Amino acid sequence: MKQEIKVYRNLMGANEEWAAKTREVLKEKKITMINIIGSPGAGKTALLEKIQTFLKGRLRFGVLEGDVETTRDAERLATLQIPVSQLLTDGACHLEAKLVHYALLDLPLDELDLVIVENVGNLVCPAEFDIGEHAKIAVLSVTEGEDKALKYPLLFRESKAVILSKIDLLPYLPFQMDVCLAAVKQIKGDVPVFALSAYKSEGMQAWVDWLLTFSEKK
Amino acid sequence: MKQEIKVYRNLMGANEEWAAKTREVLKEKKITMINIIGSPGAGKTALLEKIQTFLKGRLRFGVLEGDVETTRDAERLATLQIPVSQLLTDGACHLEAKLVHYALLDLPLDELDLVIVENVGNLVCPAEFDIGEHAKIAVLSVTEGEDKALKYPLLFRESKAVILSKIDLLPYLPFQMDVCLAAVKQIKGDVPVFALSAYKSEGMQAWVDWLLTFSEKK
Repeated sequence: MKQEIKVYRNLMGANEEWAAKTREVLKEKKITMINIIGSPGAGKTALLEKIQTFLKGRLRFGVLEGDVETTRDAERLATLQIPVSQLLTDGACHLEAKLVHYALLDLPLDELDLVIVENVGNLVCPAEFDIGEHAKIAVLSVTEGEDKALKYPLLFRESKAVILSKIDLLPYLPFQMDVCLAAVKQIKGDVPVFALSAYKSEGMQAWVDWLLTFSEKK
Repeated sequence: MKQEIKVYRNLMGANEEWAAKTREVLKEKKITMINIIGSPGAGKTALLEKIQTFLKGRLRFGVLEGDVETTRDAERLATLQIPVSQLLTDGACHLEAKLVHYALLDLPLDELDLVIVENVGNLVCPAEFDIGEHAKIAVLSVTEGEDKALKYPLLFRESKAVILSKIDLLPYLPFQMDVCLAAVKQIKGDVPVFALSAYKSEGMQAWVDWLLTFSEKK
């Protein structure tokens, strides 16, 4: 029992040290880093593809793409000429700070203002790990139901903004927006919530404006 | 390094021992147990609500409902008069065999033919753990995209059937069914795939027929 606790502390300590090193790099290079967390298929990569259109000429951004296996998402972004690296966890359910740190150093940092990390698709584990980011952002698809903030509260508690994705599907879902917003509010008070559809380019502007302001003020 | 490996082995060993105990109970009581695994909001609970209608008079079933926090899903099933217990992981991302074992013993086993475990919403971690079940079943919502079998291969490799849920939304999605089925086939060959909508009661019969046959033959 004693050994188990010791191992856990060592791992967490190492993670925090790497996160601190990442924060130093970000400060030196004047870069904002956000950590996008959501379920598999919540639309995280589609969101990044669309952000590019809205940020063009305003912020230069790169992406660290976290996945268990495959380089599919990084390939999607690379075709858009976004600087991107793929982080493979080889079966693990979240990104750790050390992996993020080394991948960050390989991006062209002098040419970037913003780094967006897309974490492994998972509402539980990624919320527990500090990777040196300025903000965690929760992405929840309206197809997942209204109650996810109550069922996975840590992520919503840790997030500085919440994105409700795929709102173009609302007419076809038994989804009650007021119930969902009340659940988010119960967990995280007045966190900003951005309802949008990357697929239909709806609601993107408000979210990108928040991102620009956050990047300046952080 | 040596300590870390030792702790991991101890934990896995214990999990397998509890899974073996569960298998003994299931054998003695002639009960089939399946382990439903899918993303948050993939429609796992909705599927269980609907299964009841189709199994009525054919198989008596109970549910072990796994969640990180809250008893919301168990409450949904309890209103349908399904014997159900809630398993809370208190932040952990999957169900372990010991928790499942004790919860199983508290169900009215002499009155059941089938126990359905709904795991924590997560495509990564639950796939790694044997809880003594006869089959893992992957649930993938068509809203999550075609590529999930490639991105989370362990779950699909471990599953004896795949459910493609929420097909009532297909007309509104850029989802290519043939691409999705090819991805599943690439990972798991000729695993049976059931495309259905619990919400609209479409495609339920084929899945329930498979479940009945599996319960007899297992």
